[in-house]
Amino acid sequence: MIYLDNAASTRIHDDVLNSMLPYLKEQYGNPSSIHKQGRLTRKAVNKARKQIASIINADPAEILITSGGTESNNTALNGISSQFPSSHIITTSIEHDAVLEPCKKLSSKGFKVDYLPVDKFGMINTLDLENAISEKTSVVSVMFGNNEVGTIQPIQKIAKICHENQIIFHTDAVQAVGKIPVDVKELDVDLLSISSHKLHGPKGIGALYIKNGVKIDPMILGGGQEFRLRSGTENVANIVGFGQACEIAQNHLDENILWIKKLQSQLVKKVLDEIPQVTFNGHVDYRLANNAHFTFLGINGEDLIIKLDEYGIAASTGSACSVNTQKASHVLKSMGFSLEQITGSLRLTVGILNTENEINETVEILKKVIEELRAVSPFKEKYSFESKN
Amino acid sequence: MIYLDNAASTRIHDDVLNSMLPYLKEQYGNPSSIHKQGRLTRKAVNKARKQIASIINADPAEILITSGGTESNNTALNGISSQFPSSHIITTSIEHDAVLEPCKKLSSKGFKVDYLPVDKFGMINTLDLENAISEKTSVVSVMFGNNEVGTIQPIQKIAKICHENQIIFHTDAVQAVGKIPVDVKELDVDLLSISSHKLHGPKGIGALYIKNGVKIDPMILGGGQEFRLRSGTENVANIVGFGQACEIAQNHLDENILWIKKLQSQLVKKVLDEIPQVTFNGHVDYRLANNAHFTFLGINGEDLIIKLDEYGIAASTGSACSVNTQKASHVLKSMGFSLEQITGSLRLTVGILNTENEINETVEILKKVIEELRAVSPFKEKYSFESKN
Repeated sequence: MIYLDNAASTRIHDDVLNSMLPYLKEQYGNPSSIHKQGRLTRKAVNKARKQIASIINADPAEILITSGGTESNNTALNGISSQFPSSHIITTSIEHDAVLEPCKKLSSKGFKVDYLPVDKFGMINTLDLENAISEKTSVVSVMFGNNEVGTIQPIQKIAKICHENQIIFHTDAVQAVGKIPVDVKELDVDLLSISSHKLHGPKGIGALYIKNGVKIDPMILGGGQEFRLRSGTENVANIVGFGQACEIAQNHLDENILWIKKLQSQLVKKVLDEIPQVTFNGHVDYRLANNAHFTFLGINGEDLIIKLDEYGIAASTGSACSVNTQKASHVLKSMGFSLEQITGSLRLTVGILNTENEINETVEILKKVIEELRAVSPFKEKYSFESKN
Repeated sequence: MIYLDNAASTRIHDDVLNSMLPYLKEQYGNPSSIHKQGRLTRKAVNKARKQIASIINADPAEILITSGGTESNNTALNGISSQFPSSHIITTSIEHDAVLEPCKKLSSKGFKVDYLPVDKFGMINTLDLENAISEKTSVVSVMFGNNEVGTIQPIQKIAKICHENQIIFHTDAVQAVGKIPVDVKELDVDLLSISSHKLHGPKGIGALYIKNGVKIDPMILGGGQEFRLRSGTENVANIVGFGQACEIAQNHLDENILWIKKLQSQLVKKVLDEIPQVTFNGHVDYRLANNAHFTFLGINGEDLIIKLDEYGIAASTGSACSVNTQKASHVLKSMGFSLEQITGSLRLTVGILNTENEINETVEILKKVIEELRAVSPFKEKYSFESKN
């Protein structure tokens, strides 16, 4: 199996699993219990909180642990907006559903929500943001790196604009943390969402960075865990694993970036060189290094995924997170893609565990599969699908 | 270590951990991915949903998987009440904070919330419920088995009263499922909360049973996972473990109940026989078999826990879930206990892994520790703390 769907989920690092095992075995105390068994798991949660904080240069007290990136995004948006009823929210047209859906709900509750457009590279224009801001704007949410095409937004500049206007700024950094350097102090963001399973940690755990001084209302109420901002017995093993995954990612960030960039460049170059009628999408410079997003004209991306799957290659047409919906990508639509271009798209996201051989093998199979699919494509008359070599 | 805090959390069953391991290692696909790696984890989630459904005799499509009992309770209360703005909610004065706190929040949002009282055994009177019901009542939430004193409420009768009045009935069954038979069809409840880590499954995972036909609004929005009722990438490993824990608990329920009842009876008998000035609290007949709750007059429960901890016994004064609050138990207050009685309380909750020897040893240590504490008690003049043997 060649796994090229690392934006959807990643393999848990062996050392992460090893760090979790004691908390799946003998260390099963409830962190809220005052006996030794409880104190040991409390200590483990505290250690993990430091590790999570460290990867984004936050203070541990600024880290709210959640059940994942989706809950983090929901908590951020609901937690701020509930303090400013009927206010104005600005986000973008290319956010993950975990931001768009809460915004839609808030819109139905009397909030005004504006969606910033993006250019054909998936980039917002900060002038649009400045123009959209009004006295009623309470929160701006702009994703860090896009999950489909990998485009990275000018986060630091957006934060500056927000703060000049006394607006809270949230960024969904689920695809960015662990892949590129993210420093909340340097960026000066107020709220930032992280997901564990995108950086070789376990699923079902994530965090919301909340800048010291920023107040949010809790969504899940009860025993008062997580600074009274997120109740429920702590998912100790997953928290420990998440912490360990952050530490490993932080310690190896430079070498990982080099490796992933190398694989991605190799992949992109070979695809563009060897396969005709293909475009490489997203921004060339401001992009997540792990993301390679292509459009193969005359192809149905779903067919392509299924064919690649038969050859043991795990790939994706775009977001893995829209369940049971065959709806066309709202990200590509926003970038001005035609339905035909959207249909022919393929996302390959490399990870630290991939090898150069896997990339070469993938391109060979991709060439073959695309040739096969194009041979039966209803568009074959429309395009010239001549082989490049 | 003698672990007698099984109401706070339980040790993960070895077979549960073994069932989880593949999903913490090579099976790391996102269940929403359409390639083989995704399909395998989707299949695993589906299997677990059946196992979870089975333990309460529900259909798999009635099982909403959440991050735990607290989220289940929040989802139930918010998910119903949002459909009936400013309506009337009835609950009890002895609920877990995961019900009380959402109710408090709803109360601040214009809902009227009534809290049914309990008698000295922690039991509600269904006449009080009938009297409290009005035309504006939208939802009733009464916990199944109390987490502090173990009292079991007349759930079937409450459901009947609710349905005669077209009211949705939710029960927090976090302490009950896996410990006593719970059949949602027989009980005819509408919503029922379950927690994995209370029944030898992993932490950070739970479920909300939603009777077919009952509509709830989702709390966490995004990619549309869990029947569009709870978005976020599924916590596959924990879900698999939760399912396995349910299957094991269901298959061994009868023998587990016998064992736990035996240990609990032995514990209660020995404590009452051998330690003076002690009361056994909660209901004698309608109680969770694993729960033994005592009041030792003249003792500070916190001191007692710390002393027991020094001897390697993990115990609790009451709920483990109220973090950083030294507040007196609202459950015992509702049962009419004086502050002194509340202060002197100890909860010992046995589990399937405990042994008869552990119970004997615990009572020996308890005798010794209580004698020591009473020797320095400010109340020692008030009570006669003569030894019983």
